[in-house]
Amino acid sequence: MRVAEIRDYLLQALPVVEVVGSDDIEIQNVGKIENAKAGEIAFVANPKYEKYLSETNASAVIISNKLNHGQPKANQAFIKVEDAYAGFAFILERFAPKREELDEGIHPTAVTLSPVPETSRVGANAYIGKNCRIGERAKIYPNVVIMDDCVIGDDCAIFPNATIYGGTKIGNRVTIHAGAVIGADGFGFAPQKDGSYRKIPQIGAVIIEDDVEIGANTCIDRATMGETRIAEGVKIDNLVQIAHNCSVGKHTVIAAQAGVSGSTKIGAKCLIGGQAGFVGHIEIGDGITIGAQSGVTKSYFKKGEFIRGYPARPLREQLRQEAYQAKLGELFEQIRRMEKELSELKNRLQTQAS
Amino acid sequence: MRVAEIRDYLLQALPVVEVVGSDDIEIQNVGKIENAKAGEIAFVANPKYEKYLSETNASAVIISNKLNHGQPKANQAFIKVEDAYAGFAFILERFAPKREELDEGIHPTAVTLSPVPETSRVGANAYIGKNCRIGERAKIYPNVVIMDDCVIGDDCAIFPNATIYGGTKIGNRVTIHAGAVIGADGFGFAPQKDGSYRKIPQIGAVIIEDDVEIGANTCIDRATMGETRIAEGVKIDNLVQIAHNCSVGKHTVIAAQAGVSGSTKIGAKCLIGGQAGFVGHIEIGDGITIGAQSGVTKSYFKKGEFIRGYPARPLREQLRQEAYQAKLGELFEQIRRMEKELSELKNRLQTQAS
Amino acid sequence: MRVAEIRDYLLQALPVVEVVGSDDIEIQNVGKIENAKAGEIAFVANPKYEKYLSETNASAVIISNKLNHGQPKANQAFIKVEDAYAGFAFILERFAPKREELDEGIHPTAVTLSPVPETSRVGANAYIGKNCRIGERAKIYPNVVIMDDCVIGDDCAIFPNATIYGGTKIGNRVTIHAGAVIGADGFGFAPQKDGSYRKIPQIGAVIIEDDVEIGANTCIDRATMGETRIAEGVKIDNLVQIAHNCSVGKHTVIAAQAGVSGSTKIGAKCLIGGQAGFVGHIEIGDGITIGAQSGVTKSYFKKGEFIRGYPARPLREQLRQEAYQAKLGELFEQIRRMEKELSELKNRLQTQAS
Repeated sequence: MRVAEIRDYLLQALPVVEVVGSDDIEIQNVGKIENAKAGEIAFVANPKYEKYLSETNASAVIISNKLNHGQPKANQAFIKVEDAYAGFAFILERFAPKREELDEGIHPTAVTLSPVPETSRVGANAYIGKNCRIGERAKIYPNVVIMDDCVIGDDCAIFPNATIYGGTKIGNRVTIHAGAVIGADGFGFAPQKDGSYRKIPQIGAVIIEDDVEIGANTCIDRATMGETRIAEGVKIDNLVQIAHNCSVGKHTVIAAQAGVSGSTKIGAKCLIGGQAGFVGHIEIGDGITIGAQSGVTKSYFKKGEFIRGYPARPLREQLRQEAYQAKLGELFEQIRRMEKELSELKNRLQTQAS
Repeated sequence: MRVAEIRDYLLQALPVVEVVGSDDIEIQNVGKIENAKAGEIAFVANPKYEKYLSETNASAVIISNKLNHGQPKANQAFIKVEDAYAGFAFILERFAPKREELDEGIHPTAVTLSPVPETSRVGANAYIGKNCRIGERAKIYPNVVIMDDCVIGDDCAIFPNATIYGGTKIGNRVTIHAGAVIGADGFGFAPQKDGSYRKIPQIGAVIIEDDVEIGANTCIDRATMGETRIAEGVKIDNLVQIAHNCSVGKHTVIAAQAGVSGSTKIGAKCLIGGQAGFVGHIEIGDGITIGAQSGVTKSYFKKGEFIRGYPARPLREQLRQEAYQAKLGELFEQIRRMEKELSELKNRLQTQAS
Repeated sequence: MRVAEIRDYLLQALPVVEVVGSDDIEIQNVGKIENAKAGEIAFVANPKYEKYLSETNASAVIISNKLNHGQPKANQAFIKVEDAYAGFAFILERFAPKREELDEGIHPTAVTLSPVPETSRVGANAYIGKNCRIGERAKIYPNVVIMDDCVIGDDCAIFPNATIYGGTKIGNRVTIHAGAVIGADGFGFAPQKDGSYRKIPQIGAVIIEDDVEIGANTCIDRATMGETRIAEGVKIDNLVQIAHNCSVGKHTVIAAQAGVSGSTKIGAKCLIGGQAGFVGHIEIGDGITIGAQSGVTKSYFKKGEFIRGYPARPLREQLRQEAYQAKLGELFEQIRRMEKELSELKNRLQTQAS
């Protein structure tokens, strides 16, 4: 693929694409700016990596048009775009090897008790229960288990050893990574007089809308009644816990090992940091960012707000608090000094009085 | 099921059940108070939800007899009980659809190297190793792996893709959710002179007593020697880590993503919050509550105590500490003021002296 | 095995082994010092357990030569070594029952699309994709999924329901516990103008070097480009998250539920505590210890340093900070007192002046 072709390809997704240097160079692969070789295309979006521009052996570099850059070497092109990261992501799609790991059709060792469209593939030892509706072009990898009464939309990929409990509804273009568990019982037990617990049947479901991606070994529990809902476009990383009756709004992103307790509602376009935790029965409005490892104990609704800390607070408060902490040493020093002055003053006063 | 029948059914589990309104209304399903429809029964236990009582379309509502409530509408009944949550849980059991996802017997694709009673069901592609004892009415879901020398009691359910390592002993009425791993090697390595580690063989076992529920993707490691024990009635949520040689006492509840390091003993009837962590080799007595995200670094024994924070402290200390924190801003202000007064006093004294 | 034989066996691994008491006692098994029975060998490395030395019924005890100890009873031997823990670990290897759970060869229900050496074993319903290279003496347990283009070295054990995504390279003597997911897509999405996200193809791989052990349900993501690398001898506990493009240096140990964000590099011989979290794109040098539940937000390079807290700080700073915290109560008290004295001084000055 020549640089000129790459420019044309990028123009399908990006408004302006300017080539500095030759547009006739041949590109065979992608690489990282630090160690790309001739014939590879790399990218620089972050000014921290600007320094590599003069050193790299990449034959082409996608760069943000806000970056400072010198001239490309001979046989090198800089491709300037507004959003170099998005541009490179688009290039990666072009160069990414197709995952053709599943043969067409249903592997003879798979057990499928519901109809599977001819365009869909089911791997070895996978299981699809009764009364399911499986969409077109699905990729059900080996050893996936889909229990009864599930709906899987079109163009979904469900990776090995994932489990979809009965009654789960999954939209189109959903990716579920290996070992994820969707629809296990919510954690609900009624305390009894003798200190034991009685299980509360969990008869609700999980609904996952279109274009969601769910990480490896993540758990999303079914609702006690009603539904646990993951809205369109949500991206969830690995080892995340979403408890019963939660909802996560459109295009929210949740990093690894975060946990959301029961019935908590997270709005649209939020960013949730890794290992953050939420108590149950609270609500987070749209467009809120939660820092990694935060412990969120109450509802927040102010769009654009950044919440952080344990217990979590709006960033301004949290930073003030951290500043106080940082000055505690000085404070102790100052108080020692004042105490000394105070006692000198007392002595002097005593002397004057006598 | 008519309201009168529901009352009689509830009386099997609850001491007093009073119906306000008609007991002749027909109930077909359960619903949530916010959006229940005619023909459905809902519940209100929490005063926060009292407001819904006048709005709901539910045909019957189970309410706590401590709540204020007006008269039910025509064709509506309020069913008053002491513990509305427990009452509703009991109702849910009656209305919950039976999970009949596993056909009777052993699926032909399952591999069972130990005898399975006729009353038990084994799903597709499940594996049961040698020398196991499987109880009556077990439900072993598809793709479960049970290695050699395990004992599984009566009335257990083991959900898809769960793994039970060899030698694990599981009691009666135990539920293990999808992807859980019981009996993997404890994390023990002896440091060597060259900085490498030598694995310490983990030759102990995991013992899970009756009526335990274990969440999806939770890990309970086998002991180095002896046993890791989960006592009767313990409820463990998803993605929890229980390390080697731990024990968890009767009817203790552990929320999602909590982690217990090796050889730590947790007493009976404790409540462990989500994402809480425990160092190894400590002991938590009976009836202690640990707040979410706490970092527990030492033993606690006082029954009824609430431990919270990082590092964790008894609630009273923790609240005092948090109050100090909250007043740091004022404190800095006060000290600035005092410093000023002090310097004024010095000046005045200077003036008087001269 | 007689005590004399145990001494000889230990001498293969340890420099000096001294027997106090009879070397003719027969040992059949291992036990814990608290409850070992006659015929068993136990160990005491930690002075906390010294008290058990006079009480134990163990027929032999491996003890650190730094411990105080009385005389063994009749029919009892104390075996003194420099490192009692390492010595006992070595003994455990001798007494540990062999895990012979997999029959020789390939189970007829397994699907193997690549050649498997005769010395290797593949369990029921396991899946090995195309174009893989499987080493000698591998143990691939039931329901493991290894996708296409993987390399598995010699003497590896991969436990049930683990998933190895395509293109993963695994060295020799690597153990991967049940449910672990190696090589799932890194969590990378480019934000779009409308607030949605576009997936960034993850075309890199995971490389796991020799002698690594990976815990149950742990996730190690593939790189966006290039590799995520786990170096020789690394030991990773359960439920750990290692994100795309991370690297972990030789002989580093990572405890359960820790999480490392994308592109972060951890050096060799580090100790990472449980539930610790790392932001992305930082670097931790060799020989650094990170406390449990720490939130590490920047790079550290000083060998031997101990980092702890949220946000994490070098231990000395963190301890100072904690000491300040602990004295806040006193501080408030002191300030109240000073304020009072100050106002008395003012009054006295007023009186003198008038």
